[in-house]
Amino acid sequence: MSEKPKSKAAGEFTLIDLFLSRFPRARVPVGPGDDCAVLTPSKGAQCITTDAVVEDVHFKRDWFTSEDIGHKALAVNLSDLASMGAIPRWFVCALALPRDFPRRELLGLARGMSALAREHGIALIGGNFTSARELSITVTAAGELPPGTAPITRAGGRPGDALYVSGTLGEARLGLQQLLSGQRRSAAILRQKRPKPRVELGRLAARFATAGLDLSDGLAQDLGHLCMASGVGAQLELERLPVSRAVRASLGVEGALAGGEDYELLLAVPAERTAAFERACLRAEEPVTCIGRLTPGQPGHIHDAMGRTLRLPAGYDHFRGGGRIDRSRR
Amino acid sequence: MSEKPKSKAAGEFTLIDLFLSRFPRARVPVGPGDDCAVLTPSKGAQCITTDAVVEDVHFKRDWFTSEDIGHKALAVNLSDLASMGAIPRWFVCALALPRDFPRRELLGLARGMSALAREHGIALIGGNFTSARELSITVTAAGELPPGTAPITRAGGRPGDALYVSGTLGEARLGLQQLLSGQRRSAAILRQKRPKPRVELGRLAARFATAGLDLSDGLAQDLGHLCMASGVGAQLELERLPVSRAVRASLGVEGALAGGEDYELLLAVPAERTAAFERACLRAEEPVTCIGRLTPGQPGHIHDAMGRTLRLPAGYDHFRGGGRIDRSRR
Repeated sequence: MSEKPKSKAAGEFTLIDLFLSRFPRARVPVGPGDDCAVLTPSKGAQCITTDAVVEDVHFKRDWFTSEDIGHKALAVNLSDLASMGAIPRWFVCALALPRDFPRRELLGLARGMSALAREHGIALIGGNFTSARELSITVTAAGELPPGTAPITRAGGRPGDALYVSGTLGEARLGLQQLLSGQRRSAAILRQKRPKPRVELGRLAARFATAGLDLSDGLAQDLGHLCMASGVGAQLELERLPVSRAVRASLGVEGALAGGEDYELLLAVPAERTAAFERACLRAEEPVTCIGRLTPGQPGHIHDAMGRTLRLPAGYDHFRGGGRIDRSRR
Repeated sequence: MSEKPKSKAAGEFTLIDLFLSRFPRARVPVGPGDDCAVLTPSKGAQCITTDAVVEDVHFKRDWFTSEDIGHKALAVNLSDLASMGAIPRWFVCALALPRDFPRRELLGLARGMSALAREHGIALIGGNFTSARELSITVTAAGELPPGTAPITRAGGRPGDALYVSGTLGEARLGLQQLLSGQRRSAAILRQKRPKPRVELGRLAARFATAGLDLSDGLAQDLGHLCMASGVGAQLELERLPVSRAVRASLGVEGALAGGEDYELLLAVPAERTAAFERACLRAEEPVTCIGRLTPGQPGHIHDAMGRTLRLPAGYDHFRGGGRIDRSRR
């Protein structure tokens, strides 16, 4: 902490109160402050995910404001809920803070996280503080499927399903490259710092899609996951990939494929439902692009429209050094 | 990793498979491997907790085997479920691993965690891996209350309720002191490394207790929390505190009060139910000791049997440096 605590009350408990003060009170039988939060039984099936953001791996404190970090920590979890078609319900937040972490930055984390939580109607029901050498935030989030609705998993894709991707690809990677080269403001940098979880699209897609996931590791790697889980191949039409001029100029299509941290949704939709799906997306103002289809080919095998096998660049993988921000660490 | 990964498959995904391989397959609609786990709706109310263990704060890798660390990471969460009277159901596990973390140690973490998970019938349903400078494990765990059962909260205590504590106090702190002084094996060190969550006692206590919590910060501090939340005072009979001869000799009663990481339960039981509660504990072989009672005094005010105000030592608080293992860090 920046100031030396003056009394017992200025220690851990005040930090918790400070953090919680930026969130609306959760409407649950027992909220933050007891050993557990207590929730009434859910009506539909529950979707649970956990994801962490770590200093110098997922963000740098020089580049990200504390609001950005708080936003990103929750956004990556909301993106997982979105990819299953779930309605966000509650989350818990475990913070590991360096000893000298300033109170105003703690409030910044809370503000960034709280703004996104309100936007998606998800309630903070509990948390944990610990000290650590580096800042990290681990969020566990839960969503609910409307009763009778099946989740969108990676495994349901069938040959012939059309492949859709939301938004545009490669912006977050371009933003990271710009940050590394000293730039501090751009549309791409905003995508890197403030990913937008596609929660509404996920809920809509649950009525159409056979399979899907969110693009955290790059289209190439994540499409591979979907294909392997579904036991199918895929044909990509590279010229249809939604890639901005800036990304195409800086990274090329290959760069957009390797991407990483796009947090767009990749969805497989049966051919007979594509027209209805596209109409629904248009009405909901959720931009999606058809980029190819699933094939009966060798599971995980991906080729282009000419039938050539795509040697896809590897995506983001912390343990292989594919991650960008932590490149400087080694 | 100790070995350089040879291919894409040797990266993050193999580590996850390796870790999961030590756990039984969770019986849920969608388990680990998708963007979210999917669970059928719970019948009773759900209790949710999140807690982290961090290298050099909660453990040292020189002193703790990886099995110890895996055990402790889950145990501290099970203890929170125990304190509410919940039946453990599922957990997710977010691991932050240093780049050079050996595979055999990852397997050790999984073994230690898995053994405790099996003992308490709790299923690993998902997780996350990231790289980090220091090892940390953040677990989020959920338990269920039998339909119609109220949770044991901190807030339900009433003047006149008898105060019970399970097991013995101060062992974990003594164990830490012994580790700091170079000792490597003792009963107290085992308590520090392998806390036993009082899950069965918690479930039993849900039929009797008006309030309760688990002792993670030391009896003094945690009793203060219970009293503040319940709006009551307390009278402690210090000579009745369950403190072993070794703890009394090394730390004194004061040391046992400040304790920290005991993970015993503190329970408030109405006077008219104490006899039945004690009989039930005896039958279940769950040792508990009556150590005083709640009073109508000033909230949070704690005195001894002679009416003298107890100046209780502060408990464990990472942000105030009350924690022991991380003392060497500053």
